[in-house]
Amino acid sequence: MRLFTHTVGTRGASLTCYIQEPDEGLKNATVRPAALILPGGAYMFLSAAESEPVALAYAAEGYNTFVLRYTVGPDSPVAAAYEDGQAALGWLRANATDLHIDPAKIVAVGFSAGGHLAASLGAFGPERPNALVLAYPGVEGPTARAGVSLADAITPEMPPAFLFGTVGDDVVPARQWLSLLQALESNIVPFESHLYMLGPHGVSLAKAHTSNGRAAGVSPDTARWFTDSVRFLTAIFGDFLVSGEPQDYSQLAARATYGPDMPIYRLIEEAGPAAVLEVHIPALLERLRGSAGSAMSLRQLSEFAPDHLPTATVERISADLARFNEVTA
Amino acid sequence: MRLFTHTVGTRGASLTCYIQEPDEGLKNATVRPAALILPGGAYMFLSAAESEPVALAYAAEGYNTFVLRYTVGPDSPVAAAYEDGQAALGWLRANATDLHIDPAKIVAVGFSAGGHLAASLGAFGPERPNALVLAYPGVEGPTARAGVSLADAITPEMPPAFLFGTVGDDVVPARQWLSLLQALESNIVPFESHLYMLGPHGVSLAKAHTSNGRAAGVSPDTARWFTDSVRFLTAIFGDFLVSGEPQDYSQLAARATYGPDMPIYRLIEEAGPAAVLEVHIPALLERLRGSAGSAMSLRQLSEFAPDHLPTATVERISADLARFNEVTA
Amino acid sequence: MRLFTHTVGTRGASLTCYIQEPDEGLKNATVRPAALILPGGAYMFLSAAESEPVALAYAAEGYNTFVLRYTVGPDSPVAAAYEDGQAALGWLRANATDLHIDPAKIVAVGFSAGGHLAASLGAFGPERPNALVLAYPGVEGPTARAGVSLADAITPEMPPAFLFGTVGDDVVPARQWLSLLQALESNIVPFESHLYMLGPHGVSLAKAHTSNGRAAGVSPDTARWFTDSVRFLTAIFGDFLVSGEPQDYSQLAARATYGPDMPIYRLIEEAGPAAVLEVHIPALLERLRGSAGSAMSLRQLSEFAPDHLPTATVERISADLARFNEVTA
Amino acid sequence: MRLFTHTVGTRGASLTCYIQEPDEGLKNATVRPAALILPGGAYMFLSAAESEPVALAYAAEGYNTFVLRYTVGPDSPVAAAYEDGQAALGWLRANATDLHIDPAKIVAVGFSAGGHLAASLGAFGPERPNALVLAYPGVEGPTARAGVSLADAITPEMPPAFLFGTVGDDVVPARQWLSLLQALESNIVPFESHLYMLGPHGVSLAKAHTSNGRAAGVSPDTARWFTDSVRFLTAIFGDFLVSGEPQDYSQLAARATYGPDMPIYRLIEEAGPAAVLEVHIPALLERLRGSAGSAMSLRQLSEFAPDHLPTATVERISADLARFNEVTA
Repeated sequence: MRLFTHTVGTRGASLTCYIQEPDEGLKNATVRPAALILPGGAYMFLSAAESEPVALAYAAEGYNTFVLRYTVGPDSPVAAAYEDGQAALGWLRANATDLHIDPAKIVAVGFSAGGHLAASLGAFGPERPNALVLAYPGVEGPTARAGVSLADAITPEMPPAFLFGTVGDDVVPARQWLSLLQALESNIVPFESHLYMLGPHGVSLAKAHTSNGRAAGVSPDTARWFTDSVRFLTAIFGDFLVSGEPQDYSQLAARATYGPDMPIYRLIEEAGPAAVLEVHIPALLERLRGSAGSAMSLRQLSEFAPDHLPTATVERISADLARFNEVTA
Repeated sequence: MRLFTHTVGTRGASLTCYIQEPDEGLKNATVRPAALILPGGAYMFLSAAESEPVALAYAAEGYNTFVLRYTVGPDSPVAAAYEDGQAALGWLRANATDLHIDPAKIVAVGFSAGGHLAASLGAFGPERPNALVLAYPGVEGPTARAGVSLADAITPEMPPAFLFGTVGDDVVPARQWLSLLQALESNIVPFESHLYMLGPHGVSLAKAHTSNGRAAGVSPDTARWFTDSVRFLTAIFGDFLVSGEPQDYSQLAARATYGPDMPIYRLIEEAGPAAVLEVHIPALLERLRGSAGSAMSLRQLSEFAPDHLPTATVERISADLARFNEVTA
Repeated sequence: MRLFTHTVGTRGASLTCYIQEPDEGLKNATVRPAALILPGGAYMFLSAAESEPVALAYAAEGYNTFVLRYTVGPDSPVAAAYEDGQAALGWLRANATDLHIDPAKIVAVGFSAGGHLAASLGAFGPERPNALVLAYPGVEGPTARAGVSLADAITPEMPPAFLFGTVGDDVVPARQWLSLLQALESNIVPFESHLYMLGPHGVSLAKAHTSNGRAAGVSPDTARWFTDSVRFLTAIFGDFLVSGEPQDYSQLAARATYGPDMPIYRLIEEAGPAAVLEVHIPALLERLRGSAGSAMSLRQLSEFAPDHLPTATVERISADLARFNEVTA
Repeated sequence: MRLFTHTVGTRGASLTCYIQEPDEGLKNATVRPAALILPGGAYMFLSAAESEPVALAYAAEGYNTFVLRYTVGPDSPVAAAYEDGQAALGWLRANATDLHIDPAKIVAVGFSAGGHLAASLGAFGPERPNALVLAYPGVEGPTARAGVSLADAITPEMPPAFLFGTVGDDVVPARQWLSLLQALESNIVPFESHLYMLGPHGVSLAKAHTSNGRAAGVSPDTARWFTDSVRFLTAIFGDFLVSGEPQDYSQLAARATYGPDMPIYRLIEEAGPAAVLEVHIPALLERLRGSAGSAMSLRQLSEFAPDHLPTATVERISADLARFNEVTA
């Protein structure tokens, strides 16, 4: 991991970057989706529980992540934070190659005031995230565009959004989220929303280590919002590419039959099958006895080392082994 | 996060350290449990998918994490890796304060050969992890002590262990794990074990980004081993301390009654209750109209700002509000 | 289980009753919460996938369950179904003792048109369910009270409600649910809502066996709405009462110490501890060798059979066993 | 559901049958897998918590289920229970058509002594279940065949088995399960095993309503053994057949474009697109205004009612709507 802090915008906002770098042992993860984390704090401060712990949570799901500590304070206009967010998005896209991220797969993840900021980036642009995760977002109040409310600013260009909150929140009431969801719906913006009944404002990941010591902020049920958000994003961005087939039951069942799929150590254990191997592959058999390679089947060994065990030999051995299946049945 | 690499042992093994530092906004997480990650690779190489991604996964659960890249290679004895592990444990404990970890809450998390190494650290000591997570561990083969098998080395001093594997594994057969579990059981070492039926060797976190592109290594079901391991460790180490009470339904239900628990914005919306507030707190009422603070109840506002709203005032207002409940019913 | 069908209302609506009866082996489940299942079908038919499978799902969570096949058809007014629902609620409460249900813990679970009906029962009364689970409910359209929309009918007397749907639903658009949630919110009715992004109308439990063969209706993620609904209801109704303490790690750890918590079979296995038992309880030791009871500890055996093994004896044995701990360490 | 009790065997053992019958609204569930539930009770009694609640849990997953109350008592040989089990399996297979079950998809689910019985049916035959779920099974003790232990009786004909238990169990120690798993492994019988660290004997589904009031028996983590068992069985038996495609994100995204996939109510809301509809389908437009059908897109309406809205008309409308997309962008 490369960990560094970059300054964005004109007011000294910092962007802490958690970059997982390409590795030949992770060959389908050379380019990653990006999560831009926007902590909350009423545009007055920046919540620690909504900063690095969240960056690590998305990093653990394969994202390269970025915590933006945007401009806040009693005299700071919302527009300042908004400009920081625009600058961060622009810098991420301009440096996507170096950051090993896909510039078309950037999610802004905002909490409370940071959710207001994330949604504002999606609503106003011109740099828009490609998806939004809004955790108990502030919705009312001034936006970066004077006189335009957040809900009113939403157009069909708004990225798809995931919204999570608790009805027990007494800082941002649920009606604010419902008005935001209605704006999404009427603009046909795909969304997902999980509003849990119980829980206070500001639960972050709803785990003990992000609770700042407050029991009311911990809930294994509510904590599922995070994994739900990852699934939501995967539906939009796609997952890291994989190929080949999953293992299935028939493969395991085939191991119980004397033949090319039975583990070699099992063939060796019984006199009859062992004698067959002795006939066809005496030297190889000697090397296999007691070695870790004997956990493989003949078929697997042949794929792994075709020079030592050609397919044709496997077929001949299998034909000779077939009679032991009759004896067993 | 502080990210750095430290050299341990006499052969240049490296320990990459992911240190989450204390923050006043995370006040119950100033000291964290530690996870020492031991990647697999048959003592010949070190698997990338079992290194940093695992460190990040435990970091996201609040751990400070450490990836040990121990000595491997065709001519390297198992004892060399073992000595690296001992050195790493010793260094972690000697520097626990600076690393913000609890020296009595160190789990060794090992995969395949790394699982063999983790179990060896627990079996032989003298530096022992406080718990073990063994993912499809190698069990047979030479150990750091000539002629003593891993299973035979286990005594009641072995730390509690979590063992995960797949029966479909054809590199380390399940019988090896079962012999290890039996050694734990007969020494009354508490353990937990999840052996899934399907899946190949080396699935790491069983997610796409740790699969190295192999579909057979991805399974949302098998991936639960990780969260199960965290729960297992929490049962042993305890969780980050929290205090106070969780929110419950009765608190939400109380909000619907005219009184000290109803959100202030709701009291303001209706003429009768608003008039009561006008009588008791005219100036405060003016400030509350349209402000974010109006999402609070009178009781909460009184707790938050007792100088502006004394308890006695809340009680008087509540008495006057009571009659509206009769009207509603 | 007692399974029978009762006719309710004036039009021959049927109520299929799945009654789990008291059993001395289930002594904290003599009175159960009740789930009144209201299948969907546009008030034209009744969906099989939203009937018995749902009744069985809640039954498996400990509920006594009831499927109401209310009056439907092209010429049937919504008010007819509503009257059936009122009659069913009345009958459940009048016969609560015989049905082994708590008359104050009745949830109406409605799907699509059945969700419209469930919400109508909660909105209009006079018999109201104690909680609502609304799966992709219809919200617009005529109600049982001419000219009054469902959303407008909601008052603070509405029971707490759980609402689930998919944004991909093209039969009931999400805006309908949002308007319903807003009506709940503005009446301070506690609610929970899970709106998943993907999925068509009518997924029922989102499992293969309730999909009627349609792949789009199956999703292990969306299927979580059901378990979420059970958790929601438990927060309101409370759970079946339990007492005593859960097992914790310290209890397991104590088993590894020679003393009253070590399994007796372990004490017997070693010469020294076995000799101690031989001194104190020779006859009992004879009976314990090889018996299933030897899995217990002395403390447990003493609790189970104090006449055979008094507490004082356990204490004397424990004192004599203590020295073996020193040897081991 | 058809609920009835049938007598099997020669000693009056009862089989309670929970039969979900075919329904045209559940057309992929006309034939179901079967679960034969074998409660525990040390062959002395039959545990209520391991009987009907388990039958209902598998029924809720689509199984037809059967609780066998086999012969128990102080003087009853294990062989009597075994014969009851053989008789039950024989009767299930002979009556598979009437019971709407697949005779090749019968799982025996046994708890404690019932797990011993289930495993015995699999080991000895001749009627064998097609899969086994063994919850904290007894393993030691006499079997139906004198002098042959359960573990020794296992051959490759043993059906695949799922084994669950808790290491905290002090009635059946984990070593018994490990010896059973080893017998499976050495006979190459596919298996899955979840041994949780904490929890006493006899937790059944580990939920409050099956705990008989004992807090130590309740754990949402341990309760996952049940869903894990269903997944295990699905891997072996296959799932209920479904066809067609799941919904994906691109389908939702397409709804935001003026054209055949946009919901009709949205087209109607705006003057331009509404005028296009007015030109092409004036009469249909009149009927769609305010109707539930307007939630469909033109493409869906055309599929649903091709006589009223031919494909060619949809194409012409779509061509005319295309220009509105340019205006929006």
